[in-house]
Amino acid sequence: MADMDSSRTPIDTMDSEHFSPYRADGKLYGFVCVVTGATQPVGKAIVTELAAHGAACIYACSSLPDEPYAELAESVNAQYPNTKVIGYPYKITSEEDTLALIDDVLNSWGRLDVWTSSTGLLGPPSINSTSPRDLYNAFESNSMPAFFALKYAPAAMQKTTPKGSYPNAAPKDIPYGSIIIVTSVAGTYGGCWGPAFTMSSHAALGVMRSGVAVLKGTGVRINAITAGQIDVGVDLKGAGLEGGQFPPASLQNKEVQERVIGLERAGRPEEVGRVAGFLASGFSSYITGAELRVDGGASVMNPLTVPL
Amino acid sequence: MADMDSSRTPIDTMDSEHFSPYRADGKLYGFVCVVTGATQPVGKAIVTELAAHGAACIYACSSLPDEPYAELAESVNAQYPNTKVIGYPYKITSEEDTLALIDDVLNSWGRLDVWTSSTGLLGPPSINSTSPRDLYNAFESNSMPAFFALKYAPAAMQKTTPKGSYPNAAPKDIPYGSIIIVTSVAGTYGGCWGPAFTMSSHAALGVMRSGVAVLKGTGVRINAITAGQIDVGVDLKGAGLEGGQFPPASLQNKEVQERVIGLERAGRPEEVGRVAGFLASGFSSYITGAELRVDGGASVMNPLTVPL
Amino acid sequence: MADMDSSRTPIDTMDSEHFSPYRADGKLYGFVCVVTGATQPVGKAIVTELAAHGAACIYACSSLPDEPYAELAESVNAQYPNTKVIGYPYKITSEEDTLALIDDVLNSWGRLDVWTSSTGLLGPPSINSTSPRDLYNAFESNSMPAFFALKYAPAAMQKTTPKGSYPNAAPKDIPYGSIIIVTSVAGTYGGCWGPAFTMSSHAALGVMRSGVAVLKGTGVRINAITAGQIDVGVDLKGAGLEGGQFPPASLQNKEVQERVIGLERAGRPEEVGRVAGFLASGFSSYITGAELRVDGGASVMNPLTVPL
Amino acid sequence: MADMDSSRTPIDTMDSEHFSPYRADGKLYGFVCVVTGATQPVGKAIVTELAAHGAACIYACSSLPDEPYAELAESVNAQYPNTKVIGYPYKITSEEDTLALIDDVLNSWGRLDVWTSSTGLLGPPSINSTSPRDLYNAFESNSMPAFFALKYAPAAMQKTTPKGSYPNAAPKDIPYGSIIIVTSVAGTYGGCWGPAFTMSSHAALGVMRSGVAVLKGTGVRINAITAGQIDVGVDLKGAGLEGGQFPPASLQNKEVQERVIGLERAGRPEEVGRVAGFLASGFSSYITGAELRVDGGASVMNPLTVPL
Repeated sequence: MADMDSSRTPIDTMDSEHFSPYRADGKLYGFVCVVTGATQPVGKAIVTELAAHGAACIYACSSLPDEPYAELAESVNAQYPNTKVIGYPYKITSEEDTLALIDDVLNSWGRLDVWTSSTGLLGPPSINSTSPRDLYNAFESNSMPAFFALKYAPAAMQKTTPKGSYPNAAPKDIPYGSIIIVTSVAGTYGGCWGPAFTMSSHAALGVMRSGVAVLKGTGVRINAITAGQIDVGVDLKGAGLEGGQFPPASLQNKEVQERVIGLERAGRPEEVGRVAGFLASGFSSYITGAELRVDGGASVMNPLTVPL
Repeated sequence: MADMDSSRTPIDTMDSEHFSPYRADGKLYGFVCVVTGATQPVGKAIVTELAAHGAACIYACSSLPDEPYAELAESVNAQYPNTKVIGYPYKITSEEDTLALIDDVLNSWGRLDVWTSSTGLLGPPSINSTSPRDLYNAFESNSMPAFFALKYAPAAMQKTTPKGSYPNAAPKDIPYGSIIIVTSVAGTYGGCWGPAFTMSSHAALGVMRSGVAVLKGTGVRINAITAGQIDVGVDLKGAGLEGGQFPPASLQNKEVQERVIGLERAGRPEEVGRVAGFLASGFSSYITGAELRVDGGASVMNPLTVPL
Repeated sequence: MADMDSSRTPIDTMDSEHFSPYRADGKLYGFVCVVTGATQPVGKAIVTELAAHGAACIYACSSLPDEPYAELAESVNAQYPNTKVIGYPYKITSEEDTLALIDDVLNSWGRLDVWTSSTGLLGPPSINSTSPRDLYNAFESNSMPAFFALKYAPAAMQKTTPKGSYPNAAPKDIPYGSIIIVTSVAGTYGGCWGPAFTMSSHAALGVMRSGVAVLKGTGVRINAITAGQIDVGVDLKGAGLEGGQFPPASLQNKEVQERVIGLERAGRPEEVGRVAGFLASGFSSYITGAELRVDGGASVMNPLTVPL
Repeated sequence: MADMDSSRTPIDTMDSEHFSPYRADGKLYGFVCVVTGATQPVGKAIVTELAAHGAACIYACSSLPDEPYAELAESVNAQYPNTKVIGYPYKITSEEDTLALIDDVLNSWGRLDVWTSSTGLLGPPSINSTSPRDLYNAFESNSMPAFFALKYAPAAMQKTTPKGSYPNAAPKDIPYGSIIIVTSVAGTYGGCWGPAFTMSSHAALGVMRSGVAVLKGTGVRINAITAGQIDVGVDLKGAGLEGGQFPPASLQNKEVQERVIGLERAGRPEEVGRVAGFLASGFSSYITGAELRVDGGASVMNPLTVPL
């Protein structure tokens, strides 16, 4: 793919030579990214994906100060040594911490290109065990970080900068940004989890939908990934969910997956990460305000539909 | 409710005294209606519902010339003797027949208020047994009648007329009309039936969606009912569907219904008829371009959603 | 319609003789209802609608203690003297107040049939002026009351009771309830208002969607009305919204309405009230988990779609 | 990115070494593809995109026998000389031609990986000028080719084959396929075009939705791209559309685009092509049954929503 761009005439600035998604060294070459929830399985997969496509730097953020950041960086750098992975403990629900993080990013790199928000506090499994406090916590964890990204990242994403002197460096000569909210199909459907998760996942989609108007004229896009059943290596059996609306543990059963999911299996964190990589890149340049459903076809296939 | 309207000041002409949905003699008092698919369970339920609310006349249409129209009229008139039920054999897919029917209606009654289209040819149960001919047949049965209603009924619905000298007569002093497309949740989801049914149900929703712009300024509304599992008294066991994508017969099982439908049971044709009555009446006066899902909560409750 | 029910054979208990939506004295005859936001235009219209269909009692609730409840009751009773309208100041966001209200209802009437939640705090018009506090306030006002209704009303709605000795009394011989969440199309789209309104309207739809599973087996249904532009008699010009994302005041312009709304006008509060009356009644007995869009066709008619 | 895969342990066969989307020579390296509508702007862009990512062969299909295939092949090969572009005149609505094409593909290459269907007959601009014949034509052009792809391509896509001796050859060691239906947001909304286009675009989405169940267990995915306003270099002024529902020519106006589209501009055919490339590749491995909206945010941003 090395000389892919040479004969391509840029139609507008989005196809700036330095910024083409087709460049052989990676569709995200030179990008500076923030990934929240970075130490969770999906967050880790996103970090790895962004690195795989040439990102220069990834702030791997988590609310917990003692996360194994070094381990994550090491594992990513074993494959992609030129991407700097910075473990960054910050409280995702703090406006001040968000501003401080963005300041740090701009001071160090002069640019910000991608922000992915992928928290997912499940909350209580049934309405009986859901208190107002649980609702606030769910909103705070599942929709507030996306809101902060929408409020504060775009100004930083509009900054341009010459080429730096670090690995995977590229100039940023046009305003560009992509905000990616990773949430659940519980943002569109009801399901087996309690109201706190469903309500706050809906609210996360609300951030995306209100974002299109907010972002007019900025060059920044915003989209949401609604994930279905993703296998993150947790066995729900014995997880204390027995009192929930459905016994979700049984849905992890291979037989049930084969029956109710189009692709007959749960998804893998990497498969969510790959979609985040697409939305981060110029390959999705006319996609904004969209919900990308990553659920193996589960939600469209409604076996209940007997029209007779 | 007799004097309900007396103290109500009409804000616009839709609340004309002669036309109020609140009148004690029925929310559809004086209406002249066309019901296609009238000899099927859902069609019958719609005829009965329209009569229950005071309709003056209902053209009960079916493609088959030898349908038991007299029986239907008798059964409706046993309860609602003042509604004239006219059995009307006509080919729903014929533009000429549609025009002739409308001519008949206007010549006899001077007005047309409601048109419900509720055909539902299921088509082959699997893609392997679906030929192009089957697709055309499905389009012709499931979406073409709605298209003809949208194309030709509105002009007739805009006619006004003084009070006639028949039972349940009322003057029509404002343009008014409601087109109601009864289709399936297969217009929004994929499911257990073959592509012909799903594709043509989608197309039926397309008629409704394109109708909003078509109907601007006419005083006519258009909406769709997407029905879930409705019990029409047919046992699918042995219906030759074994080769289908799913064994839908098993979905008729009480145990399955309890598991996958919010209301834990199939719907009844009358429950679809009631929604048609609402959409026909002034109670839905600001609803147009809407999909009313009548599925007992089946489609929103996605038991597959395990976000972990 | 007086003898409409006599020849109708109940298929299941939902069509209990005492409880039929077809009864001549009103489809909500005997119902005991809670209406929150009752002193706002849409809330008032809902109270009036419920009374018009024979409700025995309506708790007209508002957060403000000094609302003109007497005036509302008087105006409703001028038309419908047999419906008791009880002004009830209570904090919609308080779990304790909700429980106390339900206790009052059951102590006084022995039944609860309908709960409508129709708050609508608009929140700041732009993201720049939206603080975390504003988000919490919006969630608290726009989605929390629906959550409390879902959490606590169903148990009360399952109580049955013999016929009382008050006007419009009827026995309640089967568990029955309808929860109706009145929110905005901002629960599905982005629009001209700030993120707080859009996010919390999404969350309100989340309550409805999670409610289907919560309510399995209870006999209680839950649905949402998403309202488009409703004329509540407020002129937005000079309302301090100039700094917002869009100038919504200009959308109140008659010329704009004619261009962008299918029905070429804003809706009226009564037109939302009528839909609430439908959802409250047995006419919608197989509808649960549904979004009923009441927007005059605005959202489906997308003039921007030029596929060429 | 050259050694990206070396340290990646395949979790399942989808990450076969020969088939990884991360391979440095392109995410579609070795793929054999069919593109219908290939001589239209969007079709051309898809052909170019598939070549850019290493496809071995692309059947560029069109219904017209005298299309400038050589020109298309030349222009693509100027950039990507290793991709064989085969101009292929065939009637997309003919079952026999579809089968013959698939036979040709398998005989020559032993594999089939991607099928994109991107026809788009607009049909008459208003309902008055729409005849049943027009509806059939629209269904035939806009939804039938997708149906044929769903019916016949999967069996071919399941064939595996050793590495061939042509440029960009790779072994296909697992069943794999991606069917991509390029249609319009008119499949979800009503808009400025006549019913024929809206109905048949809906039907095209119906193919996708019914496809999830059809494809269970095959390893083949199916998805739809719903495009918004794409600038294909046609000026609608004077195109005889004046009698249509809306004056779509005026929507091509720069001022209107800035007002109603989130990204403030029409999309470009390449921007649709890029999304097709994503859906063709393993980067979307857990996406099936999805609608990817590519409309610059137009449909989510509903300026009409004034909830007051």
